[in-house]
Amino acid sequence: MSSTIGTLFKVSTFGESHGKAVGATVDGCPAGLALSESDIQPQLDRRRPGQSDMTTPRDEKDRVTILSGVENGLTLGTPIGLVVNNRDQRPGDYSEMSSIPRPSHADFTYQMKYGNRAASGGGRSSARETIGRVAAGAIAEKILKEKYGTVIVAYVSGVGPIDALDMTGENLTREQIDGNIIRCPDSEAAHKMIELVTETRDRKDSVGGVLTCICRNVPVGLGEPVFDKLEAKLAQAMLSIPATKGFEIGSGFAGAKMCGSEHNDPFVQKEGRLGTSTNHSGGVQGGITNGEPVVFRIAFKPPATIGLAQTTSTFDGDPPPLEAKGRHDPCVVPRAIPIVEAMAALVLVDFAMRQSYRRI
Amino acid sequence: MSSTIGTLFKVSTFGESHGKAVGATVDGCPAGLALSESDIQPQLDRRRPGQSDMTTPRDEKDRVTILSGVENGLTLGTPIGLVVNNRDQRPGDYSEMSSIPRPSHADFTYQMKYGNRAASGGGRSSARETIGRVAAGAIAEKILKEKYGTVIVAYVSGVGPIDALDMTGENLTREQIDGNIIRCPDSEAAHKMIELVTETRDRKDSVGGVLTCICRNVPVGLGEPVFDKLEAKLAQAMLSIPATKGFEIGSGFAGAKMCGSEHNDPFVQKEGRLGTSTNHSGGVQGGITNGEPVVFRIAFKPPATIGLAQTTSTFDGDPPPLEAKGRHDPCVVPRAIPIVEAMAALVLVDFAMRQSYRRI
Amino acid sequence: MSSTIGTLFKVSTFGESHGKAVGATVDGCPAGLALSESDIQPQLDRRRPGQSDMTTPRDEKDRVTILSGVENGLTLGTPIGLVVNNRDQRPGDYSEMSSIPRPSHADFTYQMKYGNRAASGGGRSSARETIGRVAAGAIAEKILKEKYGTVIVAYVSGVGPIDALDMTGENLTREQIDGNIIRCPDSEAAHKMIELVTETRDRKDSVGGVLTCICRNVPVGLGEPVFDKLEAKLAQAMLSIPATKGFEIGSGFAGAKMCGSEHNDPFVQKEGRLGTSTNHSGGVQGGITNGEPVVFRIAFKPPATIGLAQTTSTFDGDPPPLEAKGRHDPCVVPRAIPIVEAMAALVLVDFAMRQSYRRI
Amino acid sequence: MSSTIGTLFKVSTFGESHGKAVGATVDGCPAGLALSESDIQPQLDRRRPGQSDMTTPRDEKDRVTILSGVENGLTLGTPIGLVVNNRDQRPGDYSEMSSIPRPSHADFTYQMKYGNRAASGGGRSSARETIGRVAAGAIAEKILKEKYGTVIVAYVSGVGPIDALDMTGENLTREQIDGNIIRCPDSEAAHKMIELVTETRDRKDSVGGVLTCICRNVPVGLGEPVFDKLEAKLAQAMLSIPATKGFEIGSGFAGAKMCGSEHNDPFVQKEGRLGTSTNHSGGVQGGITNGEPVVFRIAFKPPATIGLAQTTSTFDGDPPPLEAKGRHDPCVVPRAIPIVEAMAALVLVDFAMRQSYRRI
Repeated sequence: MSSTIGTLFKVSTFGESHGKAVGATVDGCPAGLALSESDIQPQLDRRRPGQSDMTTPRDEKDRVTILSGVENGLTLGTPIGLVVNNRDQRPGDYSEMSSIPRPSHADFTYQMKYGNRAASGGGRSSARETIGRVAAGAIAEKILKEKYGTVIVAYVSGVGPIDALDMTGENLTREQIDGNIIRCPDSEAAHKMIELVTETRDRKDSVGGVLTCICRNVPVGLGEPVFDKLEAKLAQAMLSIPATKGFEIGSGFAGAKMCGSEHNDPFVQKEGRLGTSTNHSGGVQGGITNGEPVVFRIAFKPPATIGLAQTTSTFDGDPPPLEAKGRHDPCVVPRAIPIVEAMAALVLVDFAMRQSYRRI
Repeated sequence: MSSTIGTLFKVSTFGESHGKAVGATVDGCPAGLALSESDIQPQLDRRRPGQSDMTTPRDEKDRVTILSGVENGLTLGTPIGLVVNNRDQRPGDYSEMSSIPRPSHADFTYQMKYGNRAASGGGRSSARETIGRVAAGAIAEKILKEKYGTVIVAYVSGVGPIDALDMTGENLTREQIDGNIIRCPDSEAAHKMIELVTETRDRKDSVGGVLTCICRNVPVGLGEPVFDKLEAKLAQAMLSIPATKGFEIGSGFAGAKMCGSEHNDPFVQKEGRLGTSTNHSGGVQGGITNGEPVVFRIAFKPPATIGLAQTTSTFDGDPPPLEAKGRHDPCVVPRAIPIVEAMAALVLVDFAMRQSYRRI
Repeated sequence: MSSTIGTLFKVSTFGESHGKAVGATVDGCPAGLALSESDIQPQLDRRRPGQSDMTTPRDEKDRVTILSGVENGLTLGTPIGLVVNNRDQRPGDYSEMSSIPRPSHADFTYQMKYGNRAASGGGRSSARETIGRVAAGAIAEKILKEKYGTVIVAYVSGVGPIDALDMTGENLTREQIDGNIIRCPDSEAAHKMIELVTETRDRKDSVGGVLTCICRNVPVGLGEPVFDKLEAKLAQAMLSIPATKGFEIGSGFAGAKMCGSEHNDPFVQKEGRLGTSTNHSGGVQGGITNGEPVVFRIAFKPPATIGLAQTTSTFDGDPPPLEAKGRHDPCVVPRAIPIVEAMAALVLVDFAMRQSYRRI
Repeated sequence: MSSTIGTLFKVSTFGESHGKAVGATVDGCPAGLALSESDIQPQLDRRRPGQSDMTTPRDEKDRVTILSGVENGLTLGTPIGLVVNNRDQRPGDYSEMSSIPRPSHADFTYQMKYGNRAASGGGRSSARETIGRVAAGAIAEKILKEKYGTVIVAYVSGVGPIDALDMTGENLTREQIDGNIIRCPDSEAAHKMIELVTETRDRKDSVGGVLTCICRNVPVGLGEPVFDKLEAKLAQAMLSIPATKGFEIGSGFAGAKMCGSEHNDPFVQKEGRLGTSTNHSGGVQGGITNGEPVVFRIAFKPPATIGLAQTTSTFDGDPPPLEAKGRHDPCVVPRAIPIVEAMAALVLVDFAMRQSYRRI
């Protein structure tokens, strides 16, 4: 188990889906940051279940408490303890599944690795694990915003076969993105996506999707070659989110089909700095930010837990059909948005802190 | 700069493209492994420039020397120092480029981050940096093979718009893959790829491509949730390779278009173990290997340095045309194969070592 | 701030002395360990204030709650969240001291480093910070005991000028050590120590002391040369405890006065293993355990906060006399025992986990 | 094996005493530092064997080569590869010892941990391993000197029973310290020490000693509570040096005998900053530097390899007398000085780099 991330801004999360609490410790937050629970709660609210018909009906308020690291409204430079109590636990829902590992779920691999596993609801592999990340990410985001004016927004750019228009060039805000329940700012595509998710949910199936994330006003020079290139740590951060299957930055897989003469981003003067006229690089060259927006996309598979009967096998090799009970999202991408934003913020703030002293 | 990777099997690389030497230190290799330069050289030979018309004409023999960590043919458990001297250096080739940052290259970002940069040939952002990785990876691979029978092979599955057939299900060998100079085991596609690369090279342009990597006989249970999921660390490792833009595991971005009922991998009995009948998961569930082959793909952009004139800008904002001299690959994917295999081995062996003691 | 320790058994602590709570997250505990609060509470009870006349009168029950990582009485291999609520907070006691940095306390350096500091009671530099360590250490100790039969005991071997007899050769138990309130098993010395502490407390002063710690049944082979030698990580762990000024292993500073011919520990046969007839090495050679007891000593300075008036300076340079109110231990060594034992256990269990796979 | 140290200024060493070469990689050195071999060689010269009658007669020039990371005399911000070839190897000298683990040497523990070991001369546990540290430390020291004016000097303060006067208050220079071959600036004590070492060498024995190290002009605010307190990381660094048995900072073990009222360092105004009138703290409070000199002492045991016959046991339990051949120092402390200075510099520069961004 490695539930700790970061070199200088270090986050350690804890908590099972059906245990007492989930949370995180943020070790390395600079002192003097104005901080209260109200800085953190909004992103938890965007992540919490039960927000809309697109999400699991599990009802959790997910109220965060700061246990330490803040006094008189300012961070002390000491570890910030963050805790969210679990309330709507229903371990009983999962009893049938104890002998049947859910296909494409972590039941089997946790059992094989650890010799036991949380008997209910996915334990640590559940999306509830991400609450600690979102809480910590909100702190990281606040630092980035105050120090650099960095803005991080993610939106749903694909659900199943439906793709949204590319809107990375626009100054999207979270308000715009939250304008519909699927969180896709292309309203025509959003309409189709909502229909698809509704229909999928009604037949007890699930569907995958794609998120696009844009980080604007990222300072030039972040990222540590060789192994900690910015895109490398972003990729790790994003593929550490449950249900992700792919990551691409800038041109991504489409870039592999291009020639150098069309893919290269020419340098041009931009308001007193050297910028590029295109951004196939996704804001990163040689693992280091170049001042253009950092743009990346993450593929999410369809949730593994579905209500439809599936032919599979018990741990013992018996082939029973499995019908999941539990409560699950038919499509995770709308709720994954604050998680992706949080992970992006955690990566960026850690690089910003490591950035010091690169030159004598 | 972070040129160190790994938790227990720790690799630190050094060396610029036109300096005295490149190399690596492997800290944490178990004792008692039979090891000599001849275990390492073959992968360096597959990586070295000048192998074929597909690659840069720079001529380097890339002979490795083991400086420490081995006595009487056995590893001592102590750090293994590995060094490869540079020979065919031509720093003069790059003089024109010192005031003109090459578009989509690391010239600009290194200059902004460090305030100076290697005046020639990309320095640390050059592909020569990967020599240390390949050397270290060969050691990792030997451990994996001896202990678990793990086999790692990568092949070219796309060059520009040309895609190869999916051959992940076949027991591909490196010999098969090296059967043609583009290293694509689908001979029909290979033929077209070679034509495309030749034509691209002749008009002084470059082209991107995709690698597919398959790791067979990976033990069940590798990978450390939450932040060090196997796919997360693989993604970091792969996106730390120069010129990469994307990573996907198993179904990847295609999986985002699917429903759960078709994407889920049903469990079935397989020779005394529980396996899955499909492998959309790519051998990983919940961040932990499940015993199926680990399958992933990496997108490489077209090399940034091209001979074609480009309209761009100097550091000072003047708009000169740039014609690169230097020596460069028109397409990096054939030579990237041993690098991808090396990084996969480094990730897997580190997880295998961290694996101990997961249960009381 | 670096409140995280360990490579595979990773502990992250949080909490200020006068905040809501203190605690720790243990990331990397193996699965399948029987664990409940009752395994942890006894060491917290040995550490808590208000136990005797030797300690601060602050009254805290220090009841620990396990928030995660355990289900049905067994660890899951997932992070263990541990929390202890603060109860007897009296921030008001410290108001006078806000403009006067206490001599030899962390007030000044925290203020200089962070630009602000917990306004009361030392915040993070307080001994309450060690609660998370003791809780985590109790888990480490349980693993060591079950897997190797390791026994860790520390005792008070010096208070001010009073030294106890060397009792490292005896099979001391915690029960014996807790036989008197100063926790010194040499009852004659203990009597004098108690007198000295009482007298010191009565004149509002404080006094230093020395702890000796013995770890028996430590497996052979623990410790990672070069930089993570066992004694090096023990030294770090011990000097991370508040108020420590020195660490020595085996012969320590006395060994520096000896000749090799008297200091060398001759090898002898011991019940089927090779042991040594003396133990000047303190159980460690070349940074690796040799199977003999690991024996070390830690020097604690007199607590900085005293009731006696002191001539010093405000932050602004004014020279006021300072009379501390607050509540403080006249001598910290009796209560430091479980902290030292905890840190020793954390170091040893981490090395035991890193130990895997040292040979092919 | 953990041959890597540092969080941002990361050093990885390699090399056995009788292998091809020893060296280090420095990963994380800031760019723009003027650097050549001549900055590094002086400390290697102070460390090398064969300097005087006080040291082993092994003759090594220990010339360092910079393999990477520097171009046109300036660091690039990329890893600095450092290598020193071994020349005067005599593996044959050690053949008798292969079946007899030398008492209090690492022969036994390496064999037990790794299952094999360097057949000659201590391999990795030899003091030759420290060459990489000294080379890396010289770079760290140059940064500290240029940026903060930090001065680090260590001197021999004890050999066997002979103690030097306390000279920590004087502005000692390396020139003064190198004024005699034992490197003790108290010339009266030095004279006796030299006599003792000569006499000890002549009867084929060895003797221990103590070093005192003073770091002046260390910036206020270095050190990361909780686990990475400055003194904790210094203690780790010092006890990672071969043959060390103890570390104390400021008052150290003597401080444990004192009362708070005498031990506390009163604050006083000093040239526009708040300083302390005494320095029992050794320049550190709460794990953070306070601007006073950082002062610490390290105990070295007598070298384990002696020419005198010793009664001991073979690996198989036979009791042969052992007479070491090889070439060894009768007392290591004079040559340990540059090693201690190097380790101090590595710790301080890493903290200085981590220091950034402690406040918002």
